[in-house]
Amino acid sequence: METKSYVVKMNGNEVLIGVHHVHVNGTLYPAKTKSRKQCWEVKPSHMAQNTLNPIRAIVDGMKLTPNPDKPMIALSIGDPTVFGNLPTDEAVLQAMKDAIDSHKFNGYAPSVGYLQSRQAVANFYSCPEAPLGPEDVILTSGCSQAIDLAISVLCNPGDNILVPCPGFSLYKTLAVSMGIQVKLYNLLPEKSWDVDLQHLESLIDEKTSCIIVTNPSNPCGSVFTKEHIQKILKVASRHCVPILADEIYSDMVFPGCSSPSVASLSSDVPILACGGLAKRWLVPGWRLGWIMIHDRNDIFGSEIRQGLVKLSQRILGACTIVQGALESILNNTPQSFYSRTISFLKSNSEICFNKLSTVPGLNPVMPSGAMYLMVGIGMEHFPDFKNDVDFTERLVTEQSVFAFEYPNYFRIVVTVPEEQMVEACGRIREFCLTHYRPRSRDSNDLDQ
Amino acid sequence: METKSYVVKMNGNEVLIGVHHVHVNGTLYPAKTKSRKQCWEVKPSHMAQNTLNPIRAIVDGMKLTPNPDKPMIALSIGDPTVFGNLPTDEAVLQAMKDAIDSHKFNGYAPSVGYLQSRQAVANFYSCPEAPLGPEDVILTSGCSQAIDLAISVLCNPGDNILVPCPGFSLYKTLAVSMGIQVKLYNLLPEKSWDVDLQHLESLIDEKTSCIIVTNPSNPCGSVFTKEHIQKILKVASRHCVPILADEIYSDMVFPGCSSPSVASLSSDVPILACGGLAKRWLVPGWRLGWIMIHDRNDIFGSEIRQGLVKLSQRILGACTIVQGALESILNNTPQSFYSRTISFLKSNSEICFNKLSTVPGLNPVMPSGAMYLMVGIGMEHFPDFKNDVDFTERLVTEQSVFAFEYPNYFRIVVTVPEEQMVEACGRIREFCLTHYRPRSRDSNDLDQ
Repeated sequence: METKSYVVKMNGNEVLIGVHHVHVNGTLYPAKTKSRKQCWEVKPSHMAQNTLNPIRAIVDGMKLTPNPDKPMIALSIGDPTVFGNLPTDEAVLQAMKDAIDSHKFNGYAPSVGYLQSRQAVANFYSCPEAPLGPEDVILTSGCSQAIDLAISVLCNPGDNILVPCPGFSLYKTLAVSMGIQVKLYNLLPEKSWDVDLQHLESLIDEKTSCIIVTNPSNPCGSVFTKEHIQKILKVASRHCVPILADEIYSDMVFPGCSSPSVASLSSDVPILACGGLAKRWLVPGWRLGWIMIHDRNDIFGSEIRQGLVKLSQRILGACTIVQGALESILNNTPQSFYSRTISFLKSNSEICFNKLSTVPGLNPVMPSGAMYLMVGIGMEHFPDFKNDVDFTERLVTEQSVFAFEYPNYFRIVVTVPEEQMVEACGRIREFCLTHYRPRSRDSNDLDQ
Repeated sequence: METKSYVVKMNGNEVLIGVHHVHVNGTLYPAKTKSRKQCWEVKPSHMAQNTLNPIRAIVDGMKLTPNPDKPMIALSIGDPTVFGNLPTDEAVLQAMKDAIDSHKFNGYAPSVGYLQSRQAVANFYSCPEAPLGPEDVILTSGCSQAIDLAISVLCNPGDNILVPCPGFSLYKTLAVSMGIQVKLYNLLPEKSWDVDLQHLESLIDEKTSCIIVTNPSNPCGSVFTKEHIQKILKVASRHCVPILADEIYSDMVFPGCSSPSVASLSSDVPILACGGLAKRWLVPGWRLGWIMIHDRNDIFGSEIRQGLVKLSQRILGACTIVQGALESILNNTPQSFYSRTISFLKSNSEICFNKLSTVPGLNPVMPSGAMYLMVGIGMEHFPDFKNDVDFTERLVTEQSVFAFEYPNYFRIVVTVPEEQMVEACGRIREFCLTHYRPRSRDSNDLDQ
C-alpha cells in the first residue's frame, strides 16, 4: 500500500509525476492532479489579522517608559483587584472552596451551564416586569464570551451594529474580526453621557442587526434614567432592531441613583442582557458571565435561543468550580459588601472630581456608577501635544500616571486606593500646569 | 433636538416622510433615505445555524427512552468524573484551595495566561527534541478553545483541513461554523487505527491549511508508534502543511506503549500542539487548556504567534484560580495518581475487550491508551436494524446502554466502574444474541 506515484529523473533532477494512482482501503483510484504547496508559507488567517483589542494590547504590552523618579500609578485597566484594596467577600471565596470540597463540579457541565446555576442567576435578576427562568440564562466564560455569543448569534458578516462612543473597545474587536461593520453613535458629555438619540436613529439601516447599550457605562461612569432608557427602546422598537444590553456594571450605582435594567422597561424590543461576576463581585479573572434572554413577545423565538445554545457548544463555557459556587455567591454575599464597594467608588470619584475640577484645561465629568470617571481635555490649551494620545502618553513618561485615552477625554479608573488617587490627581495637576496655555495667548505663544 | 422628520396624513394614514434632517451635536445634516426594517424579523446568524456539535447535542438533549426495567448505563461521554470512581488527586484540589487563599488570582490575567503558569506548562512538556519556553505556550478556556484558536489562526473560509475518521466531532463543528471545509482521512482499524497515509496525502491540495492529528486517539483509543508519526510528518513536510496535534490524551497510554509527542519527532513541520488538564488530571469541567507552539524552523514566525495572541484577546482564556493552581498541579500531583488511572483504564479495557470478543457480530479493537474502545458492528448480521445509528438507538431503548455511534462502530468509554462495565457487556451480549443472524441465512430469513 505504498504511494503509487512515480519519481523519474529529468536532467538529473528528481521529478514527481503528478497523475498517479493511490490505493485507499485496498481500492485503486485515480488521484487528481492537484496544485499543492511547494514551499512553506503559513500566514495567519484574515480573522486573526483583523482582531485588534486595543485595551489588551496596551495592558499586555505596555511600551512607554514611566518617569523613573515617580512610581507608576495605573489608572488604566478596569481591574478592581490590582491594588488589593478591594478584595472580594469571604463568602465568595468560601463558596469556591465548598464547591471544590463537594467533588461535584469537576466534570463537564451542560454547554449552557448547570441548571441550578442558571436558576440562581434567573432568581437573582428576575423581576415582575422582566421575569426570567433558567431556560433564559446561558452561562459563559466571562462577560466577554457573553458579548461574543450575543453578537455572533444576531449578526452576519456585512451587517452592522450600533456601538456607543465613547465605549468599551471589545465590541469593535469582536465585530470587526467577524466582518461586521461598527457604527458609532455619540454619547453626550454635556447631558451626562446620554445617548444622542437622533444620531443613533440616523445610523440605523436595513443591515443593522443590533444596538449595543452599555449601562452603567464603561468608560463614562454614567447611568441612564428610566426615561432615557425608554427613549432608546422606542428607537429600537421603531426600527425593529434588538438590543444587546451590556449590564456588567448593573447595580453598581451610587446612592440616590436607580439603575433599572433595559429589559425591565421593554414592552416589545427583544433583549440579550450580558452580565457576570467580574465587577460587582470583584473577581474579573474567574471568567463567569451570562446572557439573559428577554423576549416576552417571542420575537427571538426558539431560533435565536437554539442559535445561542449551538454557539455555546463550540468551546463550552465557564469553569465548573465557579459555576458550582455561583448559587452561593449570589445568595450569600452580604449586602454590606456591595455597599462598601459602592461607597468607596463614590468617595474616590468625588475626590478625583473635586481635585481635577480646579485643574486648568481639564473638564472632569462626575460619574453616577460603574468604576470610571471621564476627564475632558481642552486640547486647545495644550499646544505642547499633537493630540490626546500624545497627552496621555506624556502623562506616563513625565508623571508616571497611566490613563486610557478616548477622543478628547481620558478615563480614570476609580478603584485605586484613596492615597494613590490623591497622589495621581496631584501629578495630573502638575502636568497640566506645566503645559497649560490660556486660550487667548495660544497663537501668540506658538508664533514666538 | 427632536427628530426633524415629518409626519403627514395621506388618505387618513400617517406616513413618515423619508427625506428628513437630523440634528447631531447641534449640527444639522441631511439624513439619507434608508430602507429600514418595517417589522420584527430576527434570525440567527449563518454561523449559529451552521454550528452543530453532535456530541453536545446528544449529551445535552438526549431524547431516547431507555428500558424502564434496566437502569441506564452511559458508555457515551468522555467525562471520567461522572461515576465518581475516578476522582482527581487531593493535591490537585489543594492547589485550587491554595490559589483561592492566596488572594492573588482574582484579577485579569494576561490574555495568553499568567507567565508563571505558562512557564510551568513549558517546563512540564519541554524535551531536548522539542524545547519549550513560556513564550511558546498560550493558556485557553479548555482544550476546545485551544483547538478553536489553532484552527482560527491557520485557516480562512474556503480553506480545508484534514481530519481523522473516525475522529473527535469538534473539529468539524468548529471548522464548518467558520466556513472551512473538512476532508476526512481514514484511520485503518485493521492496522491498529493507523492513518491511511495514501488517503491522507491524496486529500491535500493548495487550500489545505492544516492536518489534525489526534494521538492518543479519541475515539479509537489507539496510540501511534514513533515510526508511524514520522511517516505522517513526512506527508506534512512534503506538502508544506502544518499540523494541529490534539494531544489532550498525551501520556495516557497503557504500560509497554510509548507515546512520543508529534512535535518531538518533527524536524521541520511546524506544530500547534493542544492539550489541557481535562483528561489526565480528571477535571474536564475546569476548562484549562493550552496551545504549545513548536516552530524550530521559524515557519510560523512571529505572524502566527501574534495572530494567536490577538485571537486570545477576544474573550480571554482560562479561569485565573485554575491558572494560579496550575504550577502546583503539574509539579505536585504524585506519579501514583497517573499510574492508578492508567491501570484502571487498561484493566477495564481488557474486561470489555474480552467480554465483547466472544459476542457474535461484534469486533472490538483493543485500545492502547486514552479512555475509549471501539467495537465494530457486523451490520450484515443484524438485519433488524436499518443502520448503525438504529443499532445504537435500539441498544438504549432495549438494554439502557448508551454508546456513541461511528460508521460501522460504536465507542465505549472505559471509565465506568468495573461492575457497570461487566453489566453493560452482558447486556450488549444479550442484545446481540437477540438480533444476530448468521450471514449465510440472512436473505432466507428475511424472505420467510
